[in-house]
Amino acid sequence: MKDLAYYNGTITPIADMMIPAGDRGFYFGDGIYEVAMVFNRKLFALQEHLDRMERSASMVRIALPMPKEEIGALLQELTGRIDSACQFVYWQITRGTAPRNHLFPAGVPSNLYIYIKPWKGVEMADDYRVISVEDTRFLHCDIKTLNLLLNVLAAQKAKEAGCQEAVFVRDGIVTEGSHANVSMIKDGVFITHPADRLILPGVERRHLIAYCGELGIPVEERGFTLAELREADEILMSSTSHPSMRVMELDGVPVGRKDAETVNRLREKYLAEIAG
Amino acid sequence: MKDLAYYNGTITPIADMMIPAGDRGFYFGDGIYEVAMVFNRKLFALQEHLDRMERSASMVRIALPMPKEEIGALLQELTGRIDSACQFVYWQITRGTAPRNHLFPAGVPSNLYIYIKPWKGVEMADDYRVISVEDTRFLHCDIKTLNLLLNVLAAQKAKEAGCQEAVFVRDGIVTEGSHANVSMIKDGVFITHPADRLILPGVERRHLIAYCGELGIPVEERGFTLAELREADEILMSSTSHPSMRVMELDGVPVGRKDAETVNRLREKYLAEIAG
Repeated sequence: MKDLAYYNGTITPIADMMIPAGDRGFYFGDGIYEVAMVFNRKLFALQEHLDRMERSASMVRIALPMPKEEIGALLQELTGRIDSACQFVYWQITRGTAPRNHLFPAGVPSNLYIYIKPWKGVEMADDYRVISVEDTRFLHCDIKTLNLLLNVLAAQKAKEAGCQEAVFVRDGIVTEGSHANVSMIKDGVFITHPADRLILPGVERRHLIAYCGELGIPVEERGFTLAELREADEILMSSTSHPSMRVMELDGVPVGRKDAETVNRLREKYLAEIAG
Repeated sequence: MKDLAYYNGTITPIADMMIPAGDRGFYFGDGIYEVAMVFNRKLFALQEHLDRMERSASMVRIALPMPKEEIGALLQELTGRIDSACQFVYWQITRGTAPRNHLFPAGVPSNLYIYIKPWKGVEMADDYRVISVEDTRFLHCDIKTLNLLLNVLAAQKAKEAGCQEAVFVRDGIVTEGSHANVSMIKDGVFITHPADRLILPGVERRHLIAYCGELGIPVEERGFTLAELREADEILMSSTSHPSMRVMELDGVPVGRKDAETVNRLREKYLAEIAG
């Protein structure tokens, strides 16, 4: 197949999938999600994504519709049906289907929605432009929920400013992007926001920290200001689908791109890992 | 009909309505909503709900799928199809249907979903039990969005504590309930949180303030602490569907119910207005 969507056992092309209006994702954003990549027909970092899915679901008290391992096996099986060697895999779990009511529905299984589409390959860039925006989101950004309206608005604002991403700033501290973590390199040190409730514990962020360990690059997990970010040698935005986006402009001012060597060492590690 | 759902022109019983999985409400909670009541076959406070809908949509940059007046006329028409004289009317507008992408989809109309069901009548109570919970929601609670996961979790927590509602507290100040505004009466004064970005500007809240004006009851729109709430003569939770819920217990401790006269004067005003 070219692409596919899966919903509680039904499989269709993505564009044809219909779901009941009573799915609580539709009313309340009452669910969590994950995104993983397929490179060379292999699901990259699948276990980490399954573990985070389990954590997110647990934190919002949604029971998985089947054991974590079965979800993993299902994802593996479905990616095998897609023609492309490189794929984008999205899945979300919502708190079931029921008449609208804030209270958890009784005796209703959660819903599993998956879609898989071809992907262009490893996305890296050296020319990202970003803007800063006030971070007024909820204090549960560590949970990968479907309550993404403010991320949507920030991403759109960035685009309209001629940029590819937005960088959230809360109480003077840079937290993360609208759909990526943000890190910086300064004097050879890799600096990134601690994995607390203000940011998503990105899988790619964790891999970058591990690469630093292997390469002997010191890591500091701490908050940093927008002023520090402006003075960084490099600014990197990272996500599962866009693992290494190098920032060249922040709020219209040239930034970063002063330590290509460190960026390249990290990129080589990533490329080696996905080839592995 | 007993009940109905409407989605972009299609009408079915509520339980049968299917929507495309690509509706951005399903991925991002990317939409806004309203609830209004029908009493004696008339939509109560319709214009205020349409005005708030327009404001919410504007604040999240969603274009209405048709002019506000046409949405009002459609709601009127659809309520006429339902057998019951008393109805619950829900509608939501989402940012269209498109492949998942944070960016606004180009050239795609927004989606209008409506459902209407019979309602039991005017809901008032004198025996509400509530718990307090930390308010960790986003800073846009004045917009009636579909990003309601924290409201869902708070409502469920209340239920599990044997309560009917939760009261959010942010930085020591009581903001609102999980699906109602909270106000108090103290020494004959009606006190309620200002309509800023920390609470929903409830239609029923506004009516209560107007009734106070007509009855000569002084109104203070200001933040108050949980300690003040404990000492209030009366605590009222108000929403469109539950306009006057009198609180008798807060965090397991008896509260309020010391000024029945003022509560009854407000209730008489409400009953007179919906009868009018």
